[in-house]
Amino acid sequence: MRIVTLVTDFGLHDWFVGTMKGVLSQLAARCQVVDITHAVDPGDIWGAAFALAAAAPYFPAGSVHLAVVDPGVGSERGAVAIRTRSADYVGPDNGVLSLALRSVPILAIHRIENHRLCLNMVSHTFHGRDVFAPVAAHLANGRPLKAVGPRVSGFLRLPWPEPEETTMGWRGVVVYLDRFGNGITNLPSSLIPSRPGVAPAFRIGRRRLKLHACYADVSRGEPLVVEGSSGLLEVAVNGGSAARKLRLRRGTPVELLRQA
Amino acid sequence: MRIVTLVTDFGLHDWFVGTMKGVLSQLAARCQVVDITHAVDPGDIWGAAFALAAAAPYFPAGSVHLAVVDPGVGSERGAVAIRTRSADYVGPDNGVLSLALRSVPILAIHRIENHRLCLNMVSHTFHGRDVFAPVAAHLANGRPLKAVGPRVSGFLRLPWPEPEETTMGWRGVVVYLDRFGNGITNLPSSLIPSRPGVAPAFRIGRRRLKLHACYADVSRGEPLVVEGSSGLLEVAVNGGSAARKLRLRRGTPVELLRQA
Amino acid sequence: MRIVTLVTDFGLHDWFVGTMKGVLSQLAARCQVVDITHAVDPGDIWGAAFALAAAAPYFPAGSVHLAVVDPGVGSERGAVAIRTRSADYVGPDNGVLSLALRSVPILAIHRIENHRLCLNMVSHTFHGRDVFAPVAAHLANGRPLKAVGPRVSGFLRLPWPEPEETTMGWRGVVVYLDRFGNGITNLPSSLIPSRPGVAPAFRIGRRRLKLHACYADVSRGEPLVVEGSSGLLEVAVNGGSAARKLRLRRGTPVELLRQA
Repeated sequence: MRIVTLVTDFGLHDWFVGTMKGVLSQLAARCQVVDITHAVDPGDIWGAAFALAAAAPYFPAGSVHLAVVDPGVGSERGAVAIRTRSADYVGPDNGVLSLALRSVPILAIHRIENHRLCLNMVSHTFHGRDVFAPVAAHLANGRPLKAVGPRVSGFLRLPWPEPEETTMGWRGVVVYLDRFGNGITNLPSSLIPSRPGVAPAFRIGRRRLKLHACYADVSRGEPLVVEGSSGLLEVAVNGGSAARKLRLRRGTPVELLRQA
Repeated sequence: MRIVTLVTDFGLHDWFVGTMKGVLSQLAARCQVVDITHAVDPGDIWGAAFALAAAAPYFPAGSVHLAVVDPGVGSERGAVAIRTRSADYVGPDNGVLSLALRSVPILAIHRIENHRLCLNMVSHTFHGRDVFAPVAAHLANGRPLKAVGPRVSGFLRLPWPEPEETTMGWRGVVVYLDRFGNGITNLPSSLIPSRPGVAPAFRIGRRRLKLHACYADVSRGEPLVVEGSSGLLEVAVNGGSAARKLRLRRGTPVELLRQA
Repeated sequence: MRIVTLVTDFGLHDWFVGTMKGVLSQLAARCQVVDITHAVDPGDIWGAAFALAAAAPYFPAGSVHLAVVDPGVGSERGAVAIRTRSADYVGPDNGVLSLALRSVPILAIHRIENHRLCLNMVSHTFHGRDVFAPVAAHLANGRPLKAVGPRVSGFLRLPWPEPEETTMGWRGVVVYLDRFGNGITNLPSSLIPSRPGVAPAFRIGRRRLKLHACYADVSRGEPLVVEGSSGLLEVAVNGGSAARKLRLRRGTPVELLRQA
């Protein structure tokens, strides 16, 4: 039984996600659908790409990852199906798949063009139902990747903001704010010096933070930096929201200072 | 493996939906439950009926559609199970099932009265768990429709606001606002004249809008009309919310003018 | 096919729940995951414990109930797996499992310590993914409870506020507010005198309410008390929110007066 995961900005207020699941169950009765998230802000390609990248490594080999955040639906934007050794990725070619594929060898990229795989009536506004769910279902059924359309050489990749080395350490930014208000940065935990006795500090605006092992290591309401669960350093507040307390946004600079 | 779909106003904050799924898995271990939506506004029968009508056609034959928006729970309002050629529909007899059945031939309507199909203790406030989930489970298991109770001749239908023809074209209304702020109207896309060179216009209050193929055909922030994914014309704003920008509500008049 | 239920405060905005489901499907391909709720307020152990207690009795024997509201993640707080005759319970040892186990005989309690059951890399901030989902998967696969770690004699129990008898009747409190704004109290429905002709009243602040069979027994907007679906008396408003109208919070006193 193959798994089809879903990342969309369709929300849970309407019938959009349920309808995609109806199509998946019609065309691939034995696949199992798992929601990653549907609460991506409308049109937020980066947020969807980040969520998919964080979740995809934890799914079984052979999963099909379907991401539909698609402000260009119905226009000339392309759509792609991409195969890696462990999974297939399906979605519009607008970067939404790209963060999950940042450091994964690509086996093949095919442009989705075969209308015979789609529903009979393809609307201009809901390719999640009419194009992407059917294509994901066919791949989950084991149809070859080339059935979706011609092989192409590339797909749109969102640029990842690499941390910059400074005289003091590293300059990074917040790349994602989660529901708890934690600010996930682009600074990998591996930048933390492992020499004993060396305690790095962090600077956000005028504020200095320290690295701790877990939230409960500081008092309630106090900010800290922790090694997040995706290998990236994370700005947090114990029992509170770092986003609110430190006014974090995507792009807020976070400096790692080698010596506190 | 039969599918049971769910539309409710129970939200996802509490345990109500999960508990219904527990009952379904107890009584019909091999059914597969698919959420259409649980975020219908509390008591919004029309919203639930619209969501079910939009999603139901995309599910496999043999599905059981369960809709529980039930402000009259525990009172004398009836409850029904309705069979069509392709699916069963279960819910309170308050109209919540009716939009999905607007143009579908009905094979049989049975009033739910058989207490032996229900849980042992039927509460006054949660028939979703105690009555409707068990009935849906029994139907998914293949029990005959007549097991639920006596056959009846009708069920409550919500009146659908048909568009009115005018000297200029058609007068319709917004019938649903989705999470993106799109205003779905009761004007079917088939009202668009198909003669080449004839471009219809739309009037909402003092504002005039044009029909476009997709959102991206106008600038960001600009309003437009598109053919929606359910065969109805839809008022939208590219990258924004038509509900907010044009102050749409359910019932807001939308006029189709045959000639721009 | 065994069921794994989930109660968390992870929300549906990010990839946390989906990632736990990925881990569950990797390690226990044939289990079926059912969400009870993920919308518990961040860190609200009581709310999660209440939701689990309300839902758990409706799941099939053999289910594994996994609850992760874990503000102490990464600290020295313990983690437990608890077996009853009908189900296993897995979570941090912070009380989140305890309300579901208030009146259920416990067969065994084991402290989760076996790192070989966990993912290879255990983060400091996401034990839902790295510890609890793997442990639940192994139990769903039929691994013995003792595989998770040493047997212990107890686990943390949240104190349940028992109603107090007064000269007039009983003094209780609101223990949970649901999405409709209903205030569930700690007063069991069994406190209602069953002698005919005896109608109890309820006092909340200066307001007096009566018991009714269902919401629709009073006019729209009117408050009432009903027998809730979990065996507890519930303060409600027909078609509205008692939480808003009566300014209910957790802990708001509700008095049952034997004679109106």
